[in-house]
Amino acid sequence: MKIKIEKGNLLSAVQVASRGIPSHTTQPILECIVVEAKENVISMRSTDMEIAICTIADGEVIEDGTVALDAKIFLEIAKKMPDGDITIECGEDYQTKIVSGKTKFKIAGRDASVFPKTAESDGADEVIISEFSLKELIRTTLFSVDFNAAQKAMTGELLKVNGDRLSAISLDGHRISIRNIDLRKSYDPVSAIVPGKTLMEIQKALSGDADKDCTIIFGEKTILFSFGSTTLISRIIDGEFFDIKAIVNIQPQMTVTVNKQDFADCIDRAALFVKDGTKKPVILETKDNAIEVRIESTLGSMNEDVDATRTGGDIKIGMNPAFLSDILKNIDEETITLYFVGEKQPCIIRDRDSFLYLALPVALK
Amino acid sequence: MKIKIEKGNLLSAVQVASRGIPSHTTQPILECIVVEAKENVISMRSTDMEIAICTIADGEVIEDGTVALDAKIFLEIAKKMPDGDITIECGEDYQTKIVSGKTKFKIAGRDASVFPKTAESDGADEVIISEFSLKELIRTTLFSVDFNAAQKAMTGELLKVNGDRLSAISLDGHRISIRNIDLRKSYDPVSAIVPGKTLMEIQKALSGDADKDCTIIFGEKTILFSFGSTTLISRIIDGEFFDIKAIVNIQPQMTVTVNKQDFADCIDRAALFVKDGTKKPVILETKDNAIEVRIESTLGSMNEDVDATRTGGDIKIGMNPAFLSDILKNIDEETITLYFVGEKQPCIIRDRDSFLYLALPVALK
Repeated sequence: MKIKIEKGNLLSAVQVASRGIPSHTTQPILECIVVEAKENVISMRSTDMEIAICTIADGEVIEDGTVALDAKIFLEIAKKMPDGDITIECGEDYQTKIVSGKTKFKIAGRDASVFPKTAESDGADEVIISEFSLKELIRTTLFSVDFNAAQKAMTGELLKVNGDRLSAISLDGHRISIRNIDLRKSYDPVSAIVPGKTLMEIQKALSGDADKDCTIIFGEKTILFSFGSTTLISRIIDGEFFDIKAIVNIQPQMTVTVNKQDFADCIDRAALFVKDGTKKPVILETKDNAIEVRIESTLGSMNEDVDATRTGGDIKIGMNPAFLSDILKNIDEETITLYFVGEKQPCIIRDRDSFLYLALPVALK
Repeated sequence: MKIKIEKGNLLSAVQVASRGIPSHTTQPILECIVVEAKENVISMRSTDMEIAICTIADGEVIEDGTVALDAKIFLEIAKKMPDGDITIECGEDYQTKIVSGKTKFKIAGRDASVFPKTAESDGADEVIISEFSLKELIRTTLFSVDFNAAQKAMTGELLKVNGDRLSAISLDGHRISIRNIDLRKSYDPVSAIVPGKTLMEIQKALSGDADKDCTIIFGEKTILFSFGSTTLISRIIDGEFFDIKAIVNIQPQMTVTVNKQDFADCIDRAALFVKDGTKKPVILETKDNAIEVRIESTLGSMNEDVDATRTGGDIKIGMNPAFLSDILKNIDEETITLYFVGEKQPCIIRDRDSFLYLALPVALK
């Protein structure tokens, strides 16, 4: 194998392919990126057996061939190479020379034939969405995925297509996040529970460009994301997602509308006092034209009135400030409305149609 | 005590005073910043019993008094307060209210009378230097302080005034760093071994402004640095510093002059291959108009010729790339000259007068 790639192109391809490398593995071959030069296309791929990533690198194939290179050292070399064209050449013994000008690296490659076969998508339902929208959808829902949950479905997010709408739903034991976005055309209903780790890797790999598209292919056991020159296939999580209709459709009695940033800053200040480990809640209590936020812990106390317009009755409710803070960070609106039913019922923050966040209250003594 | 301070002024004072807080202590009072309002001056001070910091905060004294406040929570509150004027008020029970607009914090303060007495300088020899020069002097020599050395003198730097010159010298078992700067006037000879930790804190606290001065007072057991509204007193390390004249004054046989950045980049690339734990050296070997840098380890090999102009004979020498890399990071010159005596003698990098760095070689098999 012999290829020539400009440094920037090499680096971005190796960076993308590195995302598929498992953090721990007993199979040394999985620590490698497979570089393949074939029919004038240079591809780099990796897998942790759950996710498989393949990316096409822009460059020139001088001689076809394949080699598996240790991802860590390959990435370090790609980073530290001088700017300009880089030649990668691999002989029969898999010894690989990486050369640019006077800089010459030699590393031991491996036989790529023992590398697991490239996963293939088993789906046909293709949905198209802009990279920007998908990146935002993931960013604003990923925080309430419980990566360590015993219930498998909680370690992922439900991605659901219904007509011209794509929804992402995630939840842990205390919070629910729902985001909806409009698609450019209408599709047959299809859905999948996608592992949180997959979404995290995709979010990092997506450019976030509004003018670029990502194709999602929903399969029986896999989901495929194709964007730019990269394809990522992931297994999906078996089974049914949680039925949250009953929780989400509760009829709130009271609304409190506040400036989002003022409220978020105030909750952040209150969060200072939960560091003592007693898990004291922050207490939200409605006043005339305000909502009072207060907290008392062994470290000290804090209270503050945040201006609010209100409808319905009065409420006094205990909340975990960290949970509120996470939700507020993921809302970009200037003004938000909090919906309450009662002190033992969840607090919901939502707009008309594009998002709904729910957090359970903390019992007050 | 009652004082009023604008948020930015409060935050910078608390940040500076926080630098004196010990990372571990069995004396809870040392985890506090003492806030004192007296004769219209607001001061904040802290100590870890080695270093004592006192800074003056710009603000208004409404009522004299003193309180000790937990540094961590005080700093967090100062960070998260809304912009504008902040009132800090402490009653007889040391309960302290920190208020700005509608934001009200209450924390438990402590009696400051149990706080160790403010250290006083025992020196009279005053030296004046710009904050910029002092910050640079520390930055470019601190890396070769061995914070964990058994020999106390190695855990600090020698600061030495001789006429109109201030020198900083630090060394660990493998490297020596010397930096000299010219002072605006001439002083009697004076010197002190200053703990590395002290210099680290000063470097962070200095603004680095070339138009602002720092006064250094050398004492018998202490050294005092006064800059802006901050005073830092530190104990100094007892005893004599190492006599390095003999090592530094060796007569180099060979010189190799290279572009600093090219050489540093090349050493960085070679450093990739020392991660395997075998501590393989990088080999520098002179060629016609170049110096070859090469390394071989279990991970792979790398070699590169760096253009060089040379005098004297040829050299082949093993060096620790991390040590070279540290030195090169601290030199701003475009071109540098390496001086060699022989493969078992140190490599010296110096200019005419302002810096000298020395690194010991690694024996080649």
